[in-house]
Amino acid sequence: MIAYRSLRVALLGGGSVGSQVARLLIEHGPELAQRVGAELELVGIAVRDVDAKRDVELPRELYTTDAETLILGADVVVELIGGLEPARTLVLQALRSGADVVTANKALLATHGPELFEAAEQVGAQLSYEAAVAGAIPIIRPLRESLAGDRVKRILGIVNGTTNFILDRMDTSGADLDDALAVATELGYAEADPTADIGGYDAAQKAAILASLAFHTTVPIESVHREGITSVTAAQIESARKAGYVVKLLAICERLTDPDTGEEGVSARVYPALVDRRHPLAAVHGANNAVFVEAEAAGSLMFYGAGAGGVETASAVLGDLVAVARRHVVGGPGLAESTHASLPVLEIGKVITRYAVTIEVTDEPGVLATVARIFADHEVSVEQLEQSVSAAGTATLVIGTHHARESALAETVTALEASPVVSQIASVLRVEGA
Amino acid sequence: MIAYRSLRVALLGGGSVGSQVARLLIEHGPELAQRVGAELELVGIAVRDVDAKRDVELPRELYTTDAETLILGADVVVELIGGLEPARTLVLQALRSGADVVTANKALLATHGPELFEAAEQVGAQLSYEAAVAGAIPIIRPLRESLAGDRVKRILGIVNGTTNFILDRMDTSGADLDDALAVATELGYAEADPTADIGGYDAAQKAAILASLAFHTTVPIESVHREGITSVTAAQIESARKAGYVVKLLAICERLTDPDTGEEGVSARVYPALVDRRHPLAAVHGANNAVFVEAEAAGSLMFYGAGAGGVETASAVLGDLVAVARRHVVGGPGLAESTHASLPVLEIGKVITRYAVTIEVTDEPGVLATVARIFADHEVSVEQLEQSVSAAGTATLVIGTHHARESALAETVTALEASPVVSQIASVLRVEGA
Repeated sequence: MIAYRSLRVALLGGGSVGSQVARLLIEHGPELAQRVGAELELVGIAVRDVDAKRDVELPRELYTTDAETLILGADVVVELIGGLEPARTLVLQALRSGADVVTANKALLATHGPELFEAAEQVGAQLSYEAAVAGAIPIIRPLRESLAGDRVKRILGIVNGTTNFILDRMDTSGADLDDALAVATELGYAEADPTADIGGYDAAQKAAILASLAFHTTVPIESVHREGITSVTAAQIESARKAGYVVKLLAICERLTDPDTGEEGVSARVYPALVDRRHPLAAVHGANNAVFVEAEAAGSLMFYGAGAGGVETASAVLGDLVAVARRHVVGGPGLAESTHASLPVLEIGKVITRYAVTIEVTDEPGVLATVARIFADHEVSVEQLEQSVSAAGTATLVIGTHHARESALAETVTALEASPVVSQIASVLRVEGA
Repeated sequence: MIAYRSLRVALLGGGSVGSQVARLLIEHGPELAQRVGAELELVGIAVRDVDAKRDVELPRELYTTDAETLILGADVVVELIGGLEPARTLVLQALRSGADVVTANKALLATHGPELFEAAEQVGAQLSYEAAVAGAIPIIRPLRESLAGDRVKRILGIVNGTTNFILDRMDTSGADLDDALAVATELGYAEADPTADIGGYDAAQKAAILASLAFHTTVPIESVHREGITSVTAAQIESARKAGYVVKLLAICERLTDPDTGEEGVSARVYPALVDRRHPLAAVHGANNAVFVEAEAAGSLMFYGAGAGGVETASAVLGDLVAVARRHVVGGPGLAESTHASLPVLEIGKVITRYAVTIEVTDEPGVLATVARIFADHEVSVEQLEQSVSAAGTATLVIGTHHARESALAETVTALEASPVVSQIASVLRVEGA
């Protein structure tokens, strides 16, 4: 048993993301401690109402309404209140007290980013915000670090799940905006007041954050050109489809030359745009998010995943929390953490997968039963079987199995090979990704 | 003019990646210095033959055959020699001298990873290897950091560009393996001896690295089950297509339960497998790479981009180099670097984009000329024009423009609105992503 030092984590906000962060912190505590090299101790959750009903049940004594006291003495403060105030004041207070801050608050960063970063820098504290853009999709860290030696030329982002759901729905069903919005609301993809999403405000905040980061330049939210999807019609989407395009609400960050002065500048803008159906962004359906990055040396990259649900966003928050906490631990971000788990590596025979087997059999009564018996004898369940007559006297069987143990599947194939009714094993392939 | 301290960077290997790293280090020197807060001084490039002909021309005095001397006194050593020896010995030497190491060497990591990580940890040095898997696609850092608070369940990776090119070619053209390989060789996607790629050895090394990282467990290369694509036939691909599948060479890393003991274990394996055509991995064409990650909280994520070309890999190496160098700079990874560039944010009117405009016009002679004149007057070049008759006496024009300044496009639309031949502007949308 290793005794770890402990890092005090204060959580501000107990909503859907906050509850998930708290749950994962507690449930995965020992695993996280190993990865960090220090225990992450949840010292409290600041909320408006201690007795409010919540999705995740946690000990009542964790809750407090006194955020300011909670911050005092915390090593890391996780801000998940959202909105500008009191989030701004509390984050500044936390940073000035020397705590590191992890936040998912896009409005705060887009509006007060420079002030917060300056406060962090003055005391050498860290301010991390992977969860602020595109939920669990790692995009902040790749831009800040992986592409730090490259030059980003352009970012095209589908960064708002609600509007992507609506536009995708319009595209696939022919619905108009109001109907698609109604479906989105019913399914919980749109809020009661959908203005922030369909008006493009949410996407504009994310564009400001991405552009600031990609171009190492302060891009204030006021300088982001913003058009929402409210004027997009079913007719537009229909003619886009006919022309080989799909309509997507894009957050665009671009490095460009000022046509008047010839000097280098940047642009951040949000509007519904036509995207060629062969472009990877066109394949981003439903409420998913994706960020397409074009860089000078790296070429085109795309980051794709679920939009910002509570648990997905919590994953990004925890990633930041672990990274921030690692820097607290003496010796910096240890590398040996990579192998602390030491799980056994299982041989291929223990893997659970599916097979697609094509065999040639003699075309006579009872063959199907014989083949089916061979699968059953090895406890491999057949999902699908297709028979077609090939040469005279022979038939081709294509058999798709359910998930089964690899060794059982392999033995089944061996038994098929030995069977007198099988004249040839034409193909054996595993089926993956489902 | 800010005076930066200087970090000494030693480059081992002057091949296609090494040359690009050296070029970018020199060309982007001032920009990188700002991002790091220290100058990255290229002190030398260790090669076998100082006088060999190279893609990128650099001062001859940078080259040396004496790698061991070059390492001495370096703050960061970038290993791009490839293969096991002398790479292993030199990397160990560098780490033991206290230098940080950046490497793109997948064979080295898959084979001697634990030894190298231990050496690094003993002296508190960093060992970074983003470029070792999937070229410029950030996958190591997301796994190490972004998903550090989550639990990875499965990784499905298309991590070898050569085999993906070959399988994609077989799928789209019906070619057999030999013909597709010949095309890959001709286009430079396959090496003269393609064994490492088509035999699955390259993918297996990457699977070992990804599995070790994702599951915090040492996964030796010998424990990776490996099947190449050599037995994949045109007939298999044809019947896969008919059944709605595509054949991809997958590197699979999976957390699973040992069916015999009921205990948790991991599996790393490489084989050609059937993937549903609706799966995001099925849309990865040509020599591109993609890594599909399923995590407990984050859900499904995909990272997509170009395979490992010289300049793409150099981007990943430089990203690591900047990250490693930042930790050398007092005060840790400064956050203010995010805004050092301070480029002007340009208003929307200065953006260069394309428009798709749908208008209704009176259906009479000369209307097309009038409309075309309005575009020309605003210096907007028309790429495509489609006319269809709508109601009696009116026609619908769909006009696609070439790239033009947004303000010119907007003024064109205003002029169209004012024109007597235009009865209605039905739709104006920008076209992006091309």
